[in-house]
Amino acid sequence: MPESVLSLGDKAGLPPGSVVHVGEPVHEPARIDVLSYDASTFTVGGEDALNDLQTILQLPKTVWIKIQGIHDVGVVERVGHGCGLHPLVMEDIANTLQRPKKEDYGDYLFIALKLLEFDREKQRVEDRQVSIILGEGFVISFVEGANDPFAHLLERIRTAAGRIQRMGAEFLAYCLIDSVVDGYFSLTEELEDFIEALEEEVLLNPHPATVRRLYDLKLMTMAARRAVWPLRQMLGGLAGGDSVRFTDRTIPYLRDVHDHVVQALEALEELKENLTIMFELYHSSIGNRLNEVMKVLTLVATVFIPLTFLTGLYGMNFRHMPGLEWKWGYPLILSVMFTLATGMIILYRRKKWL
Amino acid sequence: MPESVLSLGDKAGLPPGSVVHVGEPVHEPARIDVLSYDASTFTVGGEDALNDLQTILQLPKTVWIKIQGIHDVGVVERVGHGCGLHPLVMEDIANTLQRPKKEDYGDYLFIALKLLEFDREKQRVEDRQVSIILGEGFVISFVEGANDPFAHLLERIRTAAGRIQRMGAEFLAYCLIDSVVDGYFSLTEELEDFIEALEEEVLLNPHPATVRRLYDLKLMTMAARRAVWPLRQMLGGLAGGDSVRFTDRTIPYLRDVHDHVVQALEALEELKENLTIMFELYHSSIGNRLNEVMKVLTLVATVFIPLTFLTGLYGMNFRHMPGLEWKWGYPLILSVMFTLATGMIILYRRKKWL
Amino acid sequence: MPESVLSLGDKAGLPPGSVVHVGEPVHEPARIDVLSYDASTFTVGGEDALNDLQTILQLPKTVWIKIQGIHDVGVVERVGHGCGLHPLVMEDIANTLQRPKKEDYGDYLFIALKLLEFDREKQRVEDRQVSIILGEGFVISFVEGANDPFAHLLERIRTAAGRIQRMGAEFLAYCLIDSVVDGYFSLTEELEDFIEALEEEVLLNPHPATVRRLYDLKLMTMAARRAVWPLRQMLGGLAGGDSVRFTDRTIPYLRDVHDHVVQALEALEELKENLTIMFELYHSSIGNRLNEVMKVLTLVATVFIPLTFLTGLYGMNFRHMPGLEWKWGYPLILSVMFTLATGMIILYRRKKWL
Amino acid sequence: MPESVLSLGDKAGLPPGSVVHVGEPVHEPARIDVLSYDASTFTVGGEDALNDLQTILQLPKTVWIKIQGIHDVGVVERVGHGCGLHPLVMEDIANTLQRPKKEDYGDYLFIALKLLEFDREKQRVEDRQVSIILGEGFVISFVEGANDPFAHLLERIRTAAGRIQRMGAEFLAYCLIDSVVDGYFSLTEELEDFIEALEEEVLLNPHPATVRRLYDLKLMTMAARRAVWPLRQMLGGLAGGDSVRFTDRTIPYLRDVHDHVVQALEALEELKENLTIMFELYHSSIGNRLNEVMKVLTLVATVFIPLTFLTGLYGMNFRHMPGLEWKWGYPLILSVMFTLATGMIILYRRKKWL
Amino acid sequence: MPESVLSLGDKAGLPPGSVVHVGEPVHEPARIDVLSYDASTFTVGGEDALNDLQTILQLPKTVWIKIQGIHDVGVVERVGHGCGLHPLVMEDIANTLQRPKKEDYGDYLFIALKLLEFDREKQRVEDRQVSIILGEGFVISFVEGANDPFAHLLERIRTAAGRIQRMGAEFLAYCLIDSVVDGYFSLTEELEDFIEALEEEVLLNPHPATVRRLYDLKLMTMAARRAVWPLRQMLGGLAGGDSVRFTDRTIPYLRDVHDHVVQALEALEELKENLTIMFELYHSSIGNRLNEVMKVLTLVATVFIPLTFLTGLYGMNFRHMPGLEWKWGYPLILSVMFTLATGMIILYRRKKWL
Repeated sequence: MPESVLSLGDKAGLPPGSVVHVGEPVHEPARIDVLSYDASTFTVGGEDALNDLQTILQLPKTVWIKIQGIHDVGVVERVGHGCGLHPLVMEDIANTLQRPKKEDYGDYLFIALKLLEFDREKQRVEDRQVSIILGEGFVISFVEGANDPFAHLLERIRTAAGRIQRMGAEFLAYCLIDSVVDGYFSLTEELEDFIEALEEEVLLNPHPATVRRLYDLKLMTMAARRAVWPLRQMLGGLAGGDSVRFTDRTIPYLRDVHDHVVQALEALEELKENLTIMFELYHSSIGNRLNEVMKVLTLVATVFIPLTFLTGLYGMNFRHMPGLEWKWGYPLILSVMFTLATGMIILYRRKKWL
Repeated sequence: MPESVLSLGDKAGLPPGSVVHVGEPVHEPARIDVLSYDASTFTVGGEDALNDLQTILQLPKTVWIKIQGIHDVGVVERVGHGCGLHPLVMEDIANTLQRPKKEDYGDYLFIALKLLEFDREKQRVEDRQVSIILGEGFVISFVEGANDPFAHLLERIRTAAGRIQRMGAEFLAYCLIDSVVDGYFSLTEELEDFIEALEEEVLLNPHPATVRRLYDLKLMTMAARRAVWPLRQMLGGLAGGDSVRFTDRTIPYLRDVHDHVVQALEALEELKENLTIMFELYHSSIGNRLNEVMKVLTLVATVFIPLTFLTGLYGMNFRHMPGLEWKWGYPLILSVMFTLATGMIILYRRKKWL
Repeated sequence: MPESVLSLGDKAGLPPGSVVHVGEPVHEPARIDVLSYDASTFTVGGEDALNDLQTILQLPKTVWIKIQGIHDVGVVERVGHGCGLHPLVMEDIANTLQRPKKEDYGDYLFIALKLLEFDREKQRVEDRQVSIILGEGFVISFVEGANDPFAHLLERIRTAAGRIQRMGAEFLAYCLIDSVVDGYFSLTEELEDFIEALEEEVLLNPHPATVRRLYDLKLMTMAARRAVWPLRQMLGGLAGGDSVRFTDRTIPYLRDVHDHVVQALEALEELKENLTIMFELYHSSIGNRLNEVMKVLTLVATVFIPLTFLTGLYGMNFRHMPGLEWKWGYPLILSVMFTLATGMIILYRRKKWL
Repeated sequence: MPESVLSLGDKAGLPPGSVVHVGEPVHEPARIDVLSYDASTFTVGGEDALNDLQTILQLPKTVWIKIQGIHDVGVVERVGHGCGLHPLVMEDIANTLQRPKKEDYGDYLFIALKLLEFDREKQRVEDRQVSIILGEGFVISFVEGANDPFAHLLERIRTAAGRIQRMGAEFLAYCLIDSVVDGYFSLTEELEDFIEALEEEVLLNPHPATVRRLYDLKLMTMAARRAVWPLRQMLGGLAGGDSVRFTDRTIPYLRDVHDHVVQALEALEELKENLTIMFELYHSSIGNRLNEVMKVLTLVATVFIPLTFLTGLYGMNFRHMPGLEWKWGYPLILSVMFTLATGMIILYRRKKWL
Repeated sequence: MPESVLSLGDKAGLPPGSVVHVGEPVHEPARIDVLSYDASTFTVGGEDALNDLQTILQLPKTVWIKIQGIHDVGVVERVGHGCGLHPLVMEDIANTLQRPKKEDYGDYLFIALKLLEFDREKQRVEDRQVSIILGEGFVISFVEGANDPFAHLLERIRTAAGRIQRMGAEFLAYCLIDSVVDGYFSLTEELEDFIEALEEEVLLNPHPATVRRLYDLKLMTMAARRAVWPLRQMLGGLAGGDSVRFTDRTIPYLRDVHDHVVQALEALEELKENLTIMFELYHSSIGNRLNEVMKVLTLVATVFIPLTFLTGLYGMNFRHMPGLEWKWGYPLILSVMFTLATGMIILYRRKKWL
């Protein structure tokens, strides 16, 4: 059985429930922390703690099994079997293309989320898979990639004796979700800055590369929206008391994070509108340039073409042409030309073509 | 803990329930009025009254705690703790980016609204956060900024003995909402005037700055719509008896204000349609100008190019060219040219190109 | 208290429930008819009958209080107080900007509608406010403006002894609604005629004024749609038995009028589609003209520019130029030019550019 | 009372429930067949059978009253009164502008449908009104126009002893609906053929008449969609057991015809998409032609304008011009011109402008 | 009765329930396999097994009747009658234009799906009809065409003793659906590759054939979406416990495949967005080219036209023209021309027209 495939199409032939890492292969080992705490005590263990999982879960404490890196299918399976997870849940955890969803398996609640970050160097939005499992007195979190988004939470549990210590596993699960959702605001702000920076380019120096960049931004905004959108319903449901895992103590906080999701979605909608307007401005800007260029062409051509005709007229070699012999013929024709040109320019100005 | 942050992204690292002023920093002190009244009596106190909050709330009167300015987090917390508000409510009050919503906390109903005003100088729509808390016999209102939108209500309670005195806290809450919603009509009318003023510019003198202004108007209209939209459902719910805080005596008034919200939304929709039409007119106008310019170019070029060819023909230096020596050669060629030019102009006129 | 204000924004400062005429000021007196009838008898009174309102409403007859003109706030208030209407209902009756709605106040049902007429002279759609109140055994109707849309109903009640006499107040209310809805078909037909008349202009002689007119039509169609749209749900509800005021005897008729509203909405949708197509035809038509003009320019320019070059060539003053001295030089160059021109025209024809 | 009016606007003044033929006047008499049959027997009568309607309906047989042509209001009223139809049903039968709907009057179910046919000669879609009434043991069908769409059904009942004979009135009603729906597929196929035929014209020889024809097709497609759309919900309801008139024996067949309606709607959607693409192709095609024409103009103009300038240069009459006297001046300038022209053409080719 | 018709329009005249092969005629015989297996045993029979169908279905095993090729109406009818299928189900199986749906007939569940494959040679998406019938202990599958998409399933049942052997008929049905859905991911990936390959062509070498290809891709994407869309609701329903045929053991797997369908739909949406962007890029690209060409024309024309006028001026044959006799006249005029040309080019550069 392959340990890592690149896309869901490649996985087509495997039987359902196969735990395979779907996504780009990663070579660093997964980092595992097993925390157990209550309002006054705090213990932390590493990978070895997985061996005593049954004992730890029995403790009257909040247990947080925190796994950073999901490419190591062995770890996913070990934790999964230790906590009695359904094979399909393990499959979903390992699949980084999994879309956000929640599923209630009775004993535990499975939540899949997307962590979104704007990579300034590559100028694109990176998404990472976050899976949260909330059971009776324990939370398991799986995060794709090496960068730990929950470090500050771990720190807060270790150091301060606040709400997070007192309010148990469901509040911890809420804090994890809240961390992920807070990241969406940073993302939209970065995208807004990027768009603002493009506006000057659009108005003053529009070229096809600008369009390409606008489209990339649009695709990113839409991808972000797709990643955030399912949370609206999911958190709406949890805030409405869908799952017994979240009690009345935590539900106001879920309503709050649901609110944030709606606000992030609105910010993304606004970004999309702004981009649409940027496209329109681009086209106006380009159209305006063409118009200006055409006006210059028309001005020069329509002024000089009749004059050139006149010069041609008096350049003809007919023997009998009145005026050629006149002393004032040349100055006369020059002043006729000057009058003609001036008249046309005045006419054009009046018609606002210039 | 920072007292004031600029955006929700900056707030990302803080624990939930932190009461932080999100928005632009303000330096004037908040103004606090504590009113208590019934059909016949009326008392008003300042900031000091916050110390006796428990006593005042026990009185068999309607109490209105009116706070102007929400950047002073201390005041928000003091009032919040005095009246037993949930930490998340206090957080929402201090957050000026909070979107409109209502939340029922059992003991009290929390309503967040946006006050919208068109700033003629800056030519943009300013929104201010209004939070209303309706409890048993009391109303608390928080308004962002220095300008008081509820001054006329305070005056009416002080002076006249009308419905507002007799009908208690829920009617007061309705009056506050109604004040905010009435402001939306003034806004849409100002925007309409602005659009009408642009129409002439679009038709007679279209240039890219016009497009920029139209887009700013569109963004403003959409922002206003986003601020008003959630009220539709919120007030629909309250008018339908969602909350025990509003009784049958006030519900017809809520239906009325719900109606006004729907009407304001329709006015904003109409503005958006008008703007779409303005864009189309702009493009028609620009396209029409290009067409006119091209027609002139074509007319001048196609009439004179053949004539210039003729002059070139008779400007050639061939020794043996019939006609050059003729006495009537020159007049003849002139009349040929004249006929040709006239013929082409007649042709173009007939084809409606001119 | 002002008796007449022009817009809802101007009304912003007034306390809710203020009966103020919102709309353009009118100077003719309101016309009041008080009818009472049953299957066999028929009585009619004027304004004086308002004094005996209590007595008249007690009669075992159907009473129709018919008011033409709602700017006279005194009349609205007098009838309202006489029949025990809620202050908000009176406010809505006087407000000509009120959107269509129905509201059930228990004792009576309040229905607000828009009467739509196409004013051929001003070339725009005029809307007038119609308010209908259906109570136990009585109907009150208020119509904005001087023109009476219900004259034929009054006539029918007076003269014929048909369904309308036998079936009581609810059938009368239905007849009033049906009258208003019938007017929508006349309107859509007038708009269709108008659009058809514009089609020829669009295809044969498109100019920016055409676009302006199309946009006016589009705005009118959308305004009409907005006025008709709320009736769909309103009548759907009444036909579904929402209100106890309408019994099974009248409900099939309401279903019928609901059907008509749906049909009118479809006709308006179709108008909108037709207008969209007209815009597209306009743009095709304009683009086609530009193309034709450009083709002529290209044809003339590309045929004559090479020829003119040739004439220039033989107009140079080099001493040693072969051909200038030849006897057949001139005819030769002429035939070369002719061949060149013919060849290019044939080439263009083949490429279908001409 | 007028017997025939052309549009619903003309009918505005009439009292509701007036049975008036709305539609284009027709002059052929209506054809009436009264069939009664069971699994083994079959009788058919003409117009006279209407006199014994009561007797026939009492028979323990399936009765099909089949009326071809609905302009004869007398027949509609006679059948309607004989079978106890509501006046509004009779009005709807006579109104050919009636949109598709079903209405359950308890004793019978009224279904209005549109028969759609593509008239190749007039190149437009004709719709005809079909009304079906399904009661206890009887079906009444009214079809607009002279052409009988149900002839094959009559034939099948007369000749074969199959499901249709055994399964009673509800199955007959289903067969009528199925006949009408089957016609929608023939229509979409004709429209598809028509569109395919236009595609070549669009790509090779686009002109404004093409646009006109595309728009006509779009209007037809949308009209067809409007006629079919209401059947989706109507048949969905009947297949879901909305009406007691259809029992479990027939419901699988109704699900099947509902399925066909959905499929026909999808085919119409696809047609609309195809048409949108045709418009886009038209515009691409036109734009491409303009581009090609402009390229030719630019090529000819930019190559010859500098050359003509050179000829003009050496056509000047300055006394002291170097080169004019040289023996090789003329050949030299010719080769300069040739090099210049070749260079420009190569440059243009490289920039892919040619 | 015809055995094979090409379109639903052709089938219009046939009575409902006629089992006719709708689709392109095929000439290979259908292939029939009858499998029966449980966790430990496995038997397979060919077409002959159809004769013992009753016996086989009674066995306490899972029976899979696997038919490859549905054009052979005789086989469909034989299997249908043997298993007691409704005539309409048999009709739907034989109709390859059947849209995806599920229907519960009590004794069995009928599911129609589309198998989608991208044919690289013909560059189009082929769809094949798959019908699945799930009854008590048996599954019947019908696949259109010769290519067997379920071969790997048959192999897995034959060789491995896994979930598929143990979990009975409903799991087998799920596996069949899952196979079909997995194919959608391969399809979207192929389409994505195709679009990516077109992007370079759009940006560097856009021509009308590119548009044609983009439109073909759009039509294919939309057709695929139409084929997948109904599965969303269908599988959502089954995963929600709509049918008694699927029990809690299989429902998590159905939720998983429902998830995959949603993901495939999102991928198709994304493809559509990408295509829209490609069209826009195409138009930008074309517009940009026109602009560049026009700029070159304008540059050349506006620089040389004034110069040519000057040469014409000094080519006139007036006797008295100052300068012609000067020694430095010619160099002077040359340097005037040079200055003029340089000045104009500098001006154009500054205005960013070049």
